[in-house]
Amino acid sequence: MAPLEGVHMTDSESNDETVASSDGDDRDVLVLRKGTHGMPVEQYAAAIRERLPEQTVTLARTPDEEHEAIENARFVTGMTLDEDLLEAATALEVFACAYAGTGHLPLDALEERNVAVTNASGVHGPNIGEHVLGAILRFTRRFHVGARQQRRREWRHYKAHELQDSTVTIVGLGAIGRAVCERLEPFGVETIGVRYTPEKGGPTDEIVGFEGAAFDEALARTDYLVLACPLTETTRGLIDHEAFVTIDPDAVLINVARGPVVDTDALVEALRSSWIRGASLDVTDPEPLPEDHPLWTFENVQITPHNAGHTPNYYERLADIVAENARRVAEDPTAELENQVIR
Amino acid sequence: MAPLEGVHMTDSESNDETVASSDGDDRDVLVLRKGTHGMPVEQYAAAIRERLPEQTVTLARTPDEEHEAIENARFVTGMTLDEDLLEAATALEVFACAYAGTGHLPLDALEERNVAVTNASGVHGPNIGEHVLGAILRFTRRFHVGARQQRRREWRHYKAHELQDSTVTIVGLGAIGRAVCERLEPFGVETIGVRYTPEKGGPTDEIVGFEGAAFDEALARTDYLVLACPLTETTRGLIDHEAFVTIDPDAVLINVARGPVVDTDALVEALRSSWIRGASLDVTDPEPLPEDHPLWTFENVQITPHNAGHTPNYYERLADIVAENARRVAEDPTAELENQVIR
Repeated sequence: MAPLEGVHMTDSESNDETVASSDGDDRDVLVLRKGTHGMPVEQYAAAIRERLPEQTVTLARTPDEEHEAIENARFVTGMTLDEDLLEAATALEVFACAYAGTGHLPLDALEERNVAVTNASGVHGPNIGEHVLGAILRFTRRFHVGARQQRRREWRHYKAHELQDSTVTIVGLGAIGRAVCERLEPFGVETIGVRYTPEKGGPTDEIVGFEGAAFDEALARTDYLVLACPLTETTRGLIDHEAFVTIDPDAVLINVARGPVVDTDALVEALRSSWIRGASLDVTDPEPLPEDHPLWTFENVQITPHNAGHTPNYYERLADIVAENARRVAEDPTAELENQVIR
Repeated sequence: MAPLEGVHMTDSESNDETVASSDGDDRDVLVLRKGTHGMPVEQYAAAIRERLPEQTVTLARTPDEEHEAIENARFVTGMTLDEDLLEAATALEVFACAYAGTGHLPLDALEERNVAVTNASGVHGPNIGEHVLGAILRFTRRFHVGARQQRRREWRHYKAHELQDSTVTIVGLGAIGRAVCERLEPFGVETIGVRYTPEKGGPTDEIVGFEGAAFDEALARTDYLVLACPLTETTRGLIDHEAFVTIDPDAVLINVARGPVVDTDALVEALRSSWIRGASLDVTDPEPLPEDHPLWTFENVQITPHNAGHTPNYYERLADIVAENARRVAEDPTAELENQVIR
């Protein structure tokens, strides 16, 4: 275990607090030690502090500090919270998860203890929107062909596609799906949204549900299929053998949701049979993708290692949500929270 | 020379005409034999025919046919027109150039003979707009890093940039510059336009001229510099050593204009010195880029072989303009034409 003197902060604002000097104030925000995407978690704590000068924001930088500090903590934020740590968190009222997905958390145990859980939904809109548009345009302009020629120093024209007048189907119309729709607006495409409750409408030209003839009919005329839904019982294996047989063979699959939304064996079969034009996979099943997996071998597959969620502004946007919620809870412990997934 | 019986058309509409059966009607449109981007010129002739059922559209598929047909032709369209062919074209009133740029044509000779010349401006808006956004997002999301890791089957997070809140400077606000601006709209960027006549305003948040402090100041805060201007005395060598010293070192250069708008030696120096983050070059100087040229060697350079202009819809969009002009001229030989560059 790292000794306490190993703790250091990236800035020296007056309200910097390490665990040792925490006054146990009920309004404290406790930040757990794990960061994300290689960005120091100190930056996250600093971003919350900046937005919450009236509160004490404590960063627990070691396992010992985490265990010590969580005992009295009422508001905790971090990438994850294991059952062991939750066991010790007897005063916990809010866990502000720093990821958009919360499937990795002990949700049942949190619910049982009446802990409110919030997520990072919305933080990823700009960067995943940019990632998805970049992936679509990469396949439209066939940049991978250019890159291959460039490695050979070969100057030779090649054909490209055009995005304008294509049909883009977006599965999931949450913050990410909507961010994709917004960015597609000036490209002159037809959009089809897929959601649980198509009757609610949405930002796409058409909306269909997850099952039935309308969904299949949408697949059959899709040029770009963007998966941006949570992984649920409905979406697990949604894009399976049947879907690949139905989809337009010129279609490109773009998965920024979760690997298991696609049946990997069916995807490999579809690629081997040219049932689709290509795939851009930010997530895979399994993940990380093993070195000997066939998905690495296709020239018409782009693999990014669960990277679409990375943005240099991640902690800043996350801190906007978390600081706002910390403020609400300090004023009224029963307040409704932004991005609340369970109470 | 290919014999006449070698002529074949891609469709069999009733008004198909080869040179042999041309009736020499004044309203004829003559299509020259050279196609572009590997797309058969027959498709271009067919697209004009479809839009101009009242006229006779003739395709000259061999050099002999060209020389024979051009003698009486009043309206000719093609990629280029050499002086030799122009010499024979004694009745020529309109040459509809199938490229957006007309610098390769014998413009002085055409003007002297009072031939109206039109270009393909606007045809490239969607595809070059898509190419430029794709290139910007490729550098934003650092897809080249992902591609390198993918070749090694290496699953490892890497950092990316964010386009939102960046500054994009667009040099040239013609059809292509405007197409880029439109597509940038939902990405939440600041845009600076550069044009000869800044006082005319434009679609960007700010506008500056080609010279002076305002231009330099714009470069100094540019994250993405898009060159989409014609090659003129003003723009030749516009991005030179001084510009590379001034520009933000995080900037990415995207050239879809003409190679000589950038001083190639200065670009290589800037890349070697990390004065810019990278470059996406659809055009180079010289072009084609020789095999031993240092520009091939940089990992942070994307080279596409003058390919941004390619679209599967090229002939369709071009035929819209050319058929409309052929119709206008048939009604009134002195009519104003779309995309007219000289009369």
